[in-house]
Amino acid sequence: MSKLVIVGTVAFDAIETPFGKTDKILGGAATFIGLAASQFNVDAAVVSVVGGDFPNEYLDLLSNKNLDISGVEIVKEGKTFFWSGKYHNDMNTRDTLATELNVLADFNPVVPEDYKNAEVVMLGNLHPLVQMSVLEQMNKKPKMVILDTMNFWMDCALDELKAVINKVDVITINDEEARQLTGEYSLVVAAQKIHKMGPKYVVIKKGEHGALLFHNENVFFAPALPLKEVFDPTGAGDTFAGGFAGYLTKTADYSFENMKTAVIYGSTLASFCVEKFGTERMLQLQDREVYQRLNQFKQLTKFEIILE
Amino acid sequence: MSKLVIVGTVAFDAIETPFGKTDKILGGAATFIGLAASQFNVDAAVVSVVGGDFPNEYLDLLSNKNLDISGVEIVKEGKTFFWSGKYHNDMNTRDTLATELNVLADFNPVVPEDYKNAEVVMLGNLHPLVQMSVLEQMNKKPKMVILDTMNFWMDCALDELKAVINKVDVITINDEEARQLTGEYSLVVAAQKIHKMGPKYVVIKKGEHGALLFHNENVFFAPALPLKEVFDPTGAGDTFAGGFAGYLTKTADYSFENMKTAVIYGSTLASFCVEKFGTERMLQLQDREVYQRLNQFKQLTKFEIILE
Repeated sequence: MSKLVIVGTVAFDAIETPFGKTDKILGGAATFIGLAASQFNVDAAVVSVVGGDFPNEYLDLLSNKNLDISGVEIVKEGKTFFWSGKYHNDMNTRDTLATELNVLADFNPVVPEDYKNAEVVMLGNLHPLVQMSVLEQMNKKPKMVILDTMNFWMDCALDELKAVINKVDVITINDEEARQLTGEYSLVVAAQKIHKMGPKYVVIKKGEHGALLFHNENVFFAPALPLKEVFDPTGAGDTFAGGFAGYLTKTADYSFENMKTAVIYGSTLASFCVEKFGTERMLQLQDREVYQRLNQFKQLTKFEIILE
Repeated sequence: MSKLVIVGTVAFDAIETPFGKTDKILGGAATFIGLAASQFNVDAAVVSVVGGDFPNEYLDLLSNKNLDISGVEIVKEGKTFFWSGKYHNDMNTRDTLATELNVLADFNPVVPEDYKNAEVVMLGNLHPLVQMSVLEQMNKKPKMVILDTMNFWMDCALDELKAVINKVDVITINDEEARQLTGEYSLVVAAQKIHKMGPKYVVIKKGEHGALLFHNENVFFAPALPLKEVFDPTGAGDTFAGGFAGYLTKTADYSFENMKTAVIYGSTLASFCVEKFGTERMLQLQDREVYQRLNQFKQLTKFEIILE
């Protein structure tokens, strides 16, 4: 069975949306990526760091999903990374209310020995130097390295970010970030420029407007499922990336055709993530529900055209 | 052969985009709808009004596409409707610089006798009372009435608009307008509310983010083709509607399945419209190019999932 290494934050989130607010709940990029990837029963390890304040029961939630957490360092005297944000009424924009790096400030990731030969590496949103360090620890070249990042690193660590972008096969990035990274408004032109920075595959996430997968001259588009209600968008992008990485790891098929299917799985899982606060919906998710929703995706996009 | 009646403006547009600006050129909802519908070689009539200042060569452009223009009234002593707008750098938002109603202010549409039994009626964006008057002139119930409208009429003629919405089978409307009309942010919920106002089919146009077709519990999504460059978005929504109406008229199949294909044709034609100023691209368009782009749409959205 193929192995997957996931690096990213395991954190506390406090979220406010028009529908309500939470105290500190389980969050973090690696958490959402791991929960999504665990849907595929792959052999996945999470590399992260938490403080002594992090409840064992949260770590148990991850290991109960068969995620290897031996690479999650616990800094007893430290505090866990904390993010707090408030979503606006449109649910597409948010204000960050607080970001406390805490133990993340001095994080030196350590990939567990058993996972240094993993076929797939998912670099979740973190300082690009941390992402690079994980790549450098791999003792053979992974079949597929996937990078997620955000505008914050473009503002304050652009050179380091470009260095890691140059080492990856796939980048997942949202539309505004793709524009910021390239200075191009057209996503087609932005994707072309990002190809030249290294990644053979570029996934541009457009939130409620779906996602685009670019590979040279080929483009694939996956819509987001139109939902009656988006309850909390936190983690949707990470869940997308985790579904994408998990599906590729499970199938061990890294072709463009299979990557399209991976994008559909990512979109499907993300459509569940937003239905409840934080990780709640992902923790309850049943295979049966995933199959039903994949079928909805087929119905949503299927059409017949006979070209004369 | 099925017949199509199109009502809407035939106008002068002056457009400014980041790529340049035009003097007064051929524009208007009925113009774009007619040019798109003419791709399907249907028997279509345009019902509209122009002033004595309107060049014969513009009318010839329409009749050369086999559009019946006997329903285009020429008010010799009047001036043609004029719209001028400036697009912002994102090409998604624009400012209206001038709107001169001129002959449109007293427009009484007259449907040509030969077209009063048309199977399909496309009510382009105009005062809802004008749209209603066209419907009332039909001497048998059309198989399919399609309405396009905009937020302006929601602001200043809401009751009249609701009366005409109640009489149509399909409404095409953009996302912000759907939200304004219903007070609902979720497009799924907005579509449900619009169903209750009358239309069995609701098409929500999202510009560069594609279009959604709702019919009871069914949803279909058509992406917009990702383009390297959007040169001038003017008329894209009307071109979409004209492609949709033209395809339904040609096939005379008003099922949901066929309507999906009509949405794809509408999106395909709109993707050409934005490539040049005004009607320029649509006037040059070759069947061969349309087929190529339909094929691109298939590639863009096709994926394989085997549900276990």
